[in-house]
Amino acid sequence: MPRIALVCEYDGTEFVGYQIQNNGRSVQEELNKAISTLYKEDIKVTGCSRTDAGVHARYHVSSCDVPFYIPEEKIPLALNPFLPEDLSVKKAIYMCDDFSARFDTLGKKYIYRIYSSPVRQPMKSRYAYHVTYKLDVDKMKVAAAYFAGEHDFAAFCAAGGSQLTTVRRIHHVIVRENDDLVEIEVSGEAFLYNMVRIIAGTLMYVGLGKIKPEDIPDVIKSCERKRAGQTLPPQGLTLEEVYYDWESKCHR
Amino acid sequence: MPRIALVCEYDGTEFVGYQIQNNGRSVQEELNKAISTLYKEDIKVTGCSRTDAGVHARYHVSSCDVPFYIPEEKIPLALNPFLPEDLSVKKAIYMCDDFSARFDTLGKKYIYRIYSSPVRQPMKSRYAYHVTYKLDVDKMKVAAAYFAGEHDFAAFCAAGGSQLTTVRRIHHVIVRENDDLVEIEVSGEAFLYNMVRIIAGTLMYVGLGKIKPEDIPDVIKSCERKRAGQTLPPQGLTLEEVYYDWESKCHR
Repeated sequence: MPRIALVCEYDGTEFVGYQIQNNGRSVQEELNKAISTLYKEDIKVTGCSRTDAGVHARYHVSSCDVPFYIPEEKIPLALNPFLPEDLSVKKAIYMCDDFSARFDTLGKKYIYRIYSSPVRQPMKSRYAYHVTYKLDVDKMKVAAAYFAGEHDFAAFCAAGGSQLTTVRRIHHVIVRENDDLVEIEVSGEAFLYNMVRIIAGTLMYVGLGKIKPEDIPDVIKSCERKRAGQTLPPQGLTLEEVYYDWESKCHR
Repeated sequence: MPRIALVCEYDGTEFVGYQIQNNGRSVQEELNKAISTLYKEDIKVTGCSRTDAGVHARYHVSSCDVPFYIPEEKIPLALNPFLPEDLSVKKAIYMCDDFSARFDTLGKKYIYRIYSSPVRQPMKSRYAYHVTYKLDVDKMKVAAAYFAGEHDFAAFCAAGGSQLTTVRRIHHVIVRENDDLVEIEVSGEAFLYNMVRIIAGTLMYVGLGKIKPEDIPDVIKSCERKRAGQTLPPQGLTLEEVYYDWESKCHR
């Protein structure tokens, strides 16, 4: 049974999230249906990450075993007709038998987008969070630099996570401004439940003057959820990249 | 009765177009409802342009008379709570009594967006048209330059228009490329029915090698619809700007 990795893109607006749920359509279920239809047998995919309801992904990886060989460049073209408009498979790659989209990730990159404008802009609102006030982006940039490295991120974890430890390694947090759009890029090894949306909310508080940039190390050290900012809503968040050691895991 | 101009933005996906129709929700109807609610009397707006079903607008102007004065910077904030998520009033301006959003336009700027990718990208598909082949953008740029000036654009007009003449003045057509996104910017005094979508379709044919750039003057002169390219679908089109002589028409 060849094992494949499927690189997908989806607009999360109308999904209950990646993972199969009883209360609505999930990305995983749509992928299972399309793959099972193509290969004419029951196939279930494993995902690199369970994105929440409303969160988007420009790059998400799932893996599964398939019963027969199709040239990998033909797989996206064969699968996409069975997928809804808001989900597509962009690439398929044959992998080693022990590859797991979930357990072999080396890291992920997310971007949280906020647009700052006195009034709502409907053409931006699908992929960015609207704030009516102007953010102090220079302060946000200073604050962002404190997140890099290995820390206990208990202050940036929503209740309901089931992890053994709240220590995580962040590669970088970068804040960029482009006209009225502020992008918060967060790259790290692994993340706690709602961690990126809480980091974004904390940096938004810095931009509003509610938290000082130089207080971020104390907020992290406190391990108190109430010291960090609010959990920003899902539509501003997009999973942009997932890292693997493709060289050693690809089938040849 | 003060007259106001309302600058709006809308995501056209779920609208039957700007103009009131019997078969679904229109931008005009939503504006009428919101303004009538705010001013507590029946008010009807006139629009600068009737965008088709599915066409977006980042800048669209409507005008109407209102029964009492509200400071203009407060009008968008007062109206937006009565408008749906996919429509907002970005600015309100008090105008002279003889101002008409429809008859006083000096011109409009549209952008048609095409993205070129072997597979569908759901996060681009809402505001751009997907083609699977690579377009020859250099040829499209050469072809675009032939559209400027006053011409009989009968070859670029869908059946069903009711205009007296098919002569129109185009300021410029510019083609830009940004990664896999091709933007066709069309600026002109006024447009025929589906004209921008047919110009975009003709330039796409040039990018595919179906029409030579140097044949564009002949296609225009022919006045034959069948010589031009296809009418591209609405989701790629956005009304980006509407020009007025604001100085002379603004109330002071």
